Amino acid sequence: MASDLVLYGYWRSTAAYRVRIALNLKGLAFENRPVHLVRGGGEQHAPAYAALNPLELVPSLRDGERTLTQSLAIMEYLDETRPEPPLLPSDAAGRARVRELAQIVACDIHPIGNLRVLQRLVTQFEAPEGEKVAWSRHWIATGFHALETMLARDSATGRYCHGDTPGLADACLIPQCYNALRWGVPLQDYPTIQRIHAACGELDAFKAAAPEAQPDAPES
Amino acid sequence: MASDLVLYGYWRSTAAYRVRIALNLKGLAFENRPVHLVRGGGEQHAPAYAALNPLELVPSLRDGERTLTQSLAIMEYLDETRPEPPLLPSDAAGRARVRELAQIVACDIHPIGNLRVLQRLVTQFEAPEGEKVAWSRHWIATGFHALETMLARDSATGRYCHGDTPGLADACLIPQCYNALRWGVPLQDYPTIQRIHAACGELDAFKAAAPEAQPDAPES
Repeated sequence: MASDLVLYGYWRSTAAYRVRIALNLKGLAFENRPVHLVRGGGEQHAPAYAALNPLELVPSLRDGERTLTQSLAIMEYLDETRPEPPLLPSDAAGRARVRELAQIVACDIHPIGNLRVLQRLVTQFEAPEGEKVAWSRHWIATGFHALETMLARDSATGRYCHGDTPGLADACLIPQCYNALRWGVPLQDYPTIQRIHAACGELDAFKAAAPEAQPDAPES
Repeated sequence: MASDLVLYGYWRSTAAYRVRIALNLKGLAFENRPVHLVRGGGEQHAPAYAALNPLELVPSLRDGERTLTQSLAIMEYLDETRPEPPLLPSDAAGRARVRELAQIVACDIHPIGNLRVLQRLVTQFEAPEGEKVAWSRHWIATGFHALETMLARDSATGRYCHGDTPGLADACLIPQCYNALRWGVPLQDYPTIQRIHAACGELDAFKAAAPEAQPDAPES
């Protein structure tokens, strides 16, 4: 069954990076099919891909004949169809906490600084590079402040976001840390996030999912 | 147990509106505690509320001693702790589809046109009202195009987003339709969305959740 999994992603897409982590944590083999988000105006807008994913974003996951979109929905689907090891805790309160942490990243940080939004800032407001940087940093810092507060004050936080097993929240947080570093947001301002980032960085599932480890990453 | 539920929301917040629909679909009584997002610079930034919700957004839900944030996480929590009637289908593929539709709204439409983002367009780019309107319409139209395509082509779509029972996807779609109409996006461009909007509009759970029906809605 695992060999039927095809991930349409892009090396630097943090949403695709999340799904790669989830697949790796579960030990699932998958075919990596890169969609170049910049070349030729963006391969995600090509008719064949838009038919798979009408929002024309990555990632998409093919599982046999089925195509799924939206990284959080994909990870929950993987957790329901390939339950071991679980990405979510077994109790409702813990599951709510993990989803909450994941959604702070996936709803309230990442979409606002995504490629298409930065492109729109340029076409609609002629935003120069410095303004795009300020915009990205602002939303990351706002979200990371909340995440740091919630992680630091809660005894449910362990070596990872929830206890001592990596899961869904870590699969969202670590790609967002990669994006934060790319835009120059210092992780040392968020010591709990920084600690979890370092802990996840030691795990093969996270190493193999890193942007630079992808076949479509540029050489330089 | 239901009387312990306290919803911190705002009449016109579409994320709070989602949770009101979910609570009503399940027939759960709750105390409505308005947080005025504009008055005095925004009550969501007051220390007492920021302690509950460090991202300083609505909604938050108190369930006894526990406080939950993030509308999708809250609705999944309600579905796990008060399972009847369910907001999600029972099969993994159906659950993935409903979450996907919900997340197109909650990740890729709503956060980009949210109040704080529009405020930032003004402070950072001095965006006049017309540019805020163009920005909002663009992201709603982009997302609704994808939703319409996915709803129209899939036989799993019924009277509502997924079959003939309203659920999580409808609880996200209908508030986004309200927001679309507010910004002047014509629903007739999206006939399946328009049809589902009309069907949900006949249900008491949706009527009672509507912004205008809230105690903090202005008279005019």
